[in-house]
Amino acid sequence: MAMKGKLCLAIFLFFLLALCSNLAMATEKKVVEDPELKTCKHQCKQQREYSEDDKRICMQMCDKYREMKQKREKQIEEEIRRKKEHEMEEKGNHHHHHSEEEEEEEEEEEKEEKENPYVFEDNDFDTRVDTEDGRECVLQKFTKKSKFLQGIQNFRLAILEANPRSFVSPRHFDSEAVFVDVKGRATIGLVIEDKTERFNLEPGDIMRIPAGTPVYVVNRDANEKLFIAQFHLPVSTPGNFEAFFGPGGKDPESVLKAFSWDVLEAALQTPRGRLEGLFSKQKKGSIFKISNEHVQALAPQTGFWPFGSSRDPFNIFSKSPTFSNQYGRLFEVGPDDKKSGLQGLNFMLTFANITKGSMSTLHYNSHATKIALVIEGDGEGRFEMACPHVSSSKSHSSYHKISARLRTGVVFVVPAGHPFVTIASKKSNLLILCFEVNARGNKKLNFAGKRNIVSALDKNAKELAFNYPAEKVDEIFNRDEQFFFPGPYTFEESEDSGRAYA
Amino acid sequence: MAMKGKLCLAIFLFFLLALCSNLAMATEKKVVEDPELKTCKHQCKQQREYSEDDKRICMQMCDKYREMKQKREKQIEEEIRRKKEHEMEEKGNHHHHHSEEEEEEEEEEEKEEKENPYVFEDNDFDTRVDTEDGRECVLQKFTKKSKFLQGIQNFRLAILEANPRSFVSPRHFDSEAVFVDVKGRATIGLVIEDKTERFNLEPGDIMRIPAGTPVYVVNRDANEKLFIAQFHLPVSTPGNFEAFFGPGGKDPESVLKAFSWDVLEAALQTPRGRLEGLFSKQKKGSIFKISNEHVQALAPQTGFWPFGSSRDPFNIFSKSPTFSNQYGRLFEVGPDDKKSGLQGLNFMLTFANITKGSMSTLHYNSHATKIALVIEGDGEGRFEMACPHVSSSKSHSSYHKISARLRTGVVFVVPAGHPFVTIASKKSNLLILCFEVNARGNKKLNFAGKRNIVSALDKNAKELAFNYPAEKVDEIFNRDEQFFFPGPYTFEESEDSGRAYA
Amino acid sequence: MAMKGKLCLAIFLFFLLALCSNLAMATEKKVVEDPELKTCKHQCKQQREYSEDDKRICMQMCDKYREMKQKREKQIEEEIRRKKEHEMEEKGNHHHHHSEEEEEEEEEEEKEEKENPYVFEDNDFDTRVDTEDGRECVLQKFTKKSKFLQGIQNFRLAILEANPRSFVSPRHFDSEAVFVDVKGRATIGLVIEDKTERFNLEPGDIMRIPAGTPVYVVNRDANEKLFIAQFHLPVSTPGNFEAFFGPGGKDPESVLKAFSWDVLEAALQTPRGRLEGLFSKQKKGSIFKISNEHVQALAPQTGFWPFGSSRDPFNIFSKSPTFSNQYGRLFEVGPDDKKSGLQGLNFMLTFANITKGSMSTLHYNSHATKIALVIEGDGEGRFEMACPHVSSSKSHSSYHKISARLRTGVVFVVPAGHPFVTIASKKSNLLILCFEVNARGNKKLNFAGKRNIVSALDKNAKELAFNYPAEKVDEIFNRDEQFFFPGPYTFEESEDSGRAYA
Repeated sequence: MAMKGKLCLAIFLFFLLALCSNLAMATEKKVVEDPELKTCKHQCKQQREYSEDDKRICMQMCDKYREMKQKREKQIEEEIRRKKEHEMEEKGNHHHHHSEEEEEEEEEEEKEEKENPYVFEDNDFDTRVDTEDGRECVLQKFTKKSKFLQGIQNFRLAILEANPRSFVSPRHFDSEAVFVDVKGRATIGLVIEDKTERFNLEPGDIMRIPAGTPVYVVNRDANEKLFIAQFHLPVSTPGNFEAFFGPGGKDPESVLKAFSWDVLEAALQTPRGRLEGLFSKQKKGSIFKISNEHVQALAPQTGFWPFGSSRDPFNIFSKSPTFSNQYGRLFEVGPDDKKSGLQGLNFMLTFANITKGSMSTLHYNSHATKIALVIEGDGEGRFEMACPHVSSSKSHSSYHKISARLRTGVVFVVPAGHPFVTIASKKSNLLILCFEVNARGNKKLNFAGKRNIVSALDKNAKELAFNYPAEKVDEIFNRDEQFFFPGPYTFEESEDSGRAYA
Repeated sequence: MAMKGKLCLAIFLFFLLALCSNLAMATEKKVVEDPELKTCKHQCKQQREYSEDDKRICMQMCDKYREMKQKREKQIEEEIRRKKEHEMEEKGNHHHHHSEEEEEEEEEEEKEEKENPYVFEDNDFDTRVDTEDGRECVLQKFTKKSKFLQGIQNFRLAILEANPRSFVSPRHFDSEAVFVDVKGRATIGLVIEDKTERFNLEPGDIMRIPAGTPVYVVNRDANEKLFIAQFHLPVSTPGNFEAFFGPGGKDPESVLKAFSWDVLEAALQTPRGRLEGLFSKQKKGSIFKISNEHVQALAPQTGFWPFGSSRDPFNIFSKSPTFSNQYGRLFEVGPDDKKSGLQGLNFMLTFANITKGSMSTLHYNSHATKIALVIEGDGEGRFEMACPHVSSSKSHSSYHKISARLRTGVVFVVPAGHPFVTIASKKSNLLILCFEVNARGNKKLNFAGKRNIVSALDKNAKELAFNYPAEKVDEIFNRDEQFFFPGPYTFEESEDSGRAYA
Repeated sequence: MAMKGKLCLAIFLFFLLALCSNLAMATEKKVVEDPELKTCKHQCKQQREYSEDDKRICMQMCDKYREMKQKREKQIEEEIRRKKEHEMEEKGNHHHHHSEEEEEEEEEEEKEEKENPYVFEDNDFDTRVDTEDGRECVLQKFTKKSKFLQGIQNFRLAILEANPRSFVSPRHFDSEAVFVDVKGRATIGLVIEDKTERFNLEPGDIMRIPAGTPVYVVNRDANEKLFIAQFHLPVSTPGNFEAFFGPGGKDPESVLKAFSWDVLEAALQTPRGRLEGLFSKQKKGSIFKISNEHVQALAPQTGFWPFGSSRDPFNIFSKSPTFSNQYGRLFEVGPDDKKSGLQGLNFMLTFANITKGSMSTLHYNSHATKIALVIEGDGEGRFEMACPHVSSSKSHSSYHKISARLRTGVVFVVPAGHPFVTIASKKSNLLILCFEVNARGNKKLNFAGKRNIVSALDKNAKELAFNYPAEKVDEIFNRDEQFFFPGPYTFEESEDSGRAYA
């Protein structure tokens, strides 16, 4: 009997070993209804040497095994996910501070966001500098969320926020940067050769900051916060840029403090004691409050250059809008605009002001990929895009809808070729600043309104494509307005009321 | 005894646990002669507490363990392979339909293909559109097979195949595309600004399709199939491109159907009911048969532009060949050819027609990487290339031979610097269309024939390099023909017959 | 009892299975104090059915389990590390020969090097060719050590070393290459069209070798070794380049030997027997000793081109230095220098000669990333760089010091924007050759000396940034010298002696 017991246990062991190794081999496949579980239990029952107790334990172990297997699978998935994330995470991200309390959202929207690698919210930004008087946040690498954004992986978006009358200490970036004054009134100081040039910025002003140029920023307004959007094109570390604070203070300390004291002593011909003194004078972080007198002393000197400096900021609203009607206005500035400072960059800035209750047309960019920052939005505005990338193969439709609610600070990306619309809320205008990369030769092609691509099809092709009379197709796609239209609100209501249309 | 049984089983368990964990740790190393198996069985025999039965079971478990370990190793390899593939696979690839019945090949050739990341066959294409009247297939990303093709990872090759008198519905691509009429007679319609321009294409005609431009295609021939090779340079998603079907129909549905109904209603000022009507009229897929009248109605209008449009297709055969003799002809079109439409692209098109029984010289491209599509080949033509990348470190030779049989539809890649030859079969000409990327400043350098690089070495260097008299080296490498030669067939025969040469 | 034994063993098994599967699930987390071990042993003790022996075995198995788990974890880490390495390793690396005996270093320095992805030593080079009379070593891919070097991942540095009066057999590269004669006197032969052009090189001479061009090298000096630094820009396989030896010999054999005999017979119109003869004449490797007569016969022909060839080498010392004083000199050659051969390349060559006992200023490049090769250094010279990438989040300082001792052959990388210094030893000059990529529009910005960026800050910003009077800041950062200064040695001594400064 003992021998028999041993034998049957050996068989059991054998069975277990098989299970165990299967476990190790578990792959990522989802186990919806596990045929293995059934087989396992069946085998328990068939073991003639087993007592009833043995069989019961055996079957319990089948359950346990399945449970562990599922746990294991989850873990593998999780590991793969984490590994991928880790690979994409970069130096900047160890400063990552997620705000734990995320705004509560309707469930539906939550779901939308998860399927939505094209939309970025507050918690997709990393805080790099955070003082009492301001902060600097950097949007995560675009590829962190989705490989579909590889085309823009080298670009980074950052936002500088400074309290009234505050000073952002001089630093330089290892990136070409374009600063846009989004809100508030700034003074910017750039060290050019052996002197500092200062410029006043108003909302809509664009300043290019060449790589390596020391730059400081002043919020010269006594009451209003300053917001500057920074678009960075890294020059040496693709997809990553860093700020190097020269003079320093605390948090961060001066970049000079990384050097050995004997090196600093020799480079600056100054003994260590005096250098330590110098570096310890500044107790504040890199953004701090200053007096009104200081603000005034930092104002640009005028009068010397009667015609302005060639580096003067370029205001995006100084050009006539590309499209303008009662439903909205679109401003565009590109490398071809002399004095825009964008020469040599294959990128363009656009600013859309969509009147409340209105929308942009259904359109796409031929070449440019749009990185859009909502400057003003009450969360009721909308973005919709047709996207082939995330379409499920089982779905009947070949294209998938990407959508988002647009509130101030949201970022969304529209790759070239992808049709999309933006819609203002009923209550307030929607203001969007767009960085359009790969803008050379770009065209905006519309599906609806004046000069749309559907009406432009010749009659026969149109009829074949739609299997419908050309005039009827034209009736639908043609309309008098161009680019900006009344929004979907009137239709929404009529939809509710049933049959407003014949 | 029971206690003893328990103990020995505990030891056995211990042993098993070790096995089991080893199993989990199994790495990719191949187990040819497993010393572990021997040790395992030896340990079974040495267990003095074991009965003979126990020992037998123990040894069986050793076998079983080894079997599972090997299985596990295979699985790990497979998993790693799949993971890599998965990482490389992109959006387009969920449409991937492998033909289950692969053509039977000689074993030798099968082997060649596995070692051969530079050659692509039918089953390396994914079918994106497949209707009764035509299909569109896209070659997998080049990096899917080999990291050595990273240099061309951003390019994609596709082939459109349409039955006589069929219509390919309008769509736009998120890529710059170059269409080449490979076989058959097409009409192509492009939406330029607010009207459609139509062009007739003959074999050899090249048309550039700017990114985002809606394009439709007609096979205007009543009998012959149409084949168009498409070379895509994605603009926003590196290595991936998508077609966006505007007007739609089924499979795929219109890109517009991805939008919310209220958005479409507002954008098109048309109630949902009518829109649903519009989108449901077209029951056919995106490639379908049309009547002769329709074909005629879609013919380009002539007479208006007496000198032709600047967008007129450019025929690759309209230039004189770069090389031409009785053994073959080579045609080249590049960005420098005005009207070729290739301006601004760093790429070139070449077309080789190698006379049956002939071959191209042993040569390499200095800068260009060649993506070659066999337009006509009976499977008896050959491709050989010397490649340092896949050379085994144990092999005596430093360079490895890559080779392939050339039949219609085969694609092969020749990176810059890699010497290669192409050889027509004895029975029929070999026609090859090549997309040569990074073509700027490219030169073709030959090892044999007129103007070869070996003869061009100065006398002393030649003698030192070969340790052989310069005249004798020249005798071998020099010959009167340039670029195309008689093929290896005469030599093959003489080889059989023994000693044809002194 | 037997039944009870079975049951308790079944429970034990159960427990084991759990352990075993946990094992499989082991992740990378370090187990410092393993709570699991405690639980495991506790469970052993609580098994009432167990005899004392069973419990002891059980507890031993806990220990064993833990040990295996740790081993497993290590293995996983190792595997991940190896996989990453493997992904980065490329074709060239199977020739990798690590010198087992690494020079002994002070412990501190060892540590520095490990944290130091910006510095490369002898063992970071792979030997590709190694004969009695010379060798060719290639620096590993820059990304192998650190992802922070992605920006320069496409470039490769190689060093050719040839004994006096030796010949490096003709080959071509699948890369654009720039050769710099670092030491010794060379003759270089390039096959241009259908003849060979030869050039004499002296130290400091730069030659561009266009991709695909067959090139041979002669050390024409009877006594001195020749060192040529090669900077490669691969054209088809990003980050990888290969040499293709045409005429061959052994190690490597001719690239032609990769082809089938029937193909070679047809291409060269020569029977196999004679070809085999040709390829077997050269028994030597690709670098071998030649006679003085041969050296002389390979000398460039002069007199034909009275004004020199347009391909003549450009000597970096032929330009006046950008900076020059008693402490050092800096020479720069870029694409703007006609005849430099660097036209069309976005890269620049610089050569710094730092006088013994001196240093370069604390400075950074605005755009260029510097790949520096120490040409002469006695190991007492130093390099220091401030780096944000590897800063630990716990450290008080925001920037991390990267440092290295500079001896001949060391390579270090300075990304754009990163402040750094180089310091010669007290005993001998420090000579550094730099390949500066992305050099277009580059500026060198200094923290100290004449025209430094700190002094250039306007008075108010300076005082705010430092919280210190502007004059006192200027006193520290301003000095009369520019770019090269006396080194830190005087300060070191005074530091020892206590309080040399008030």
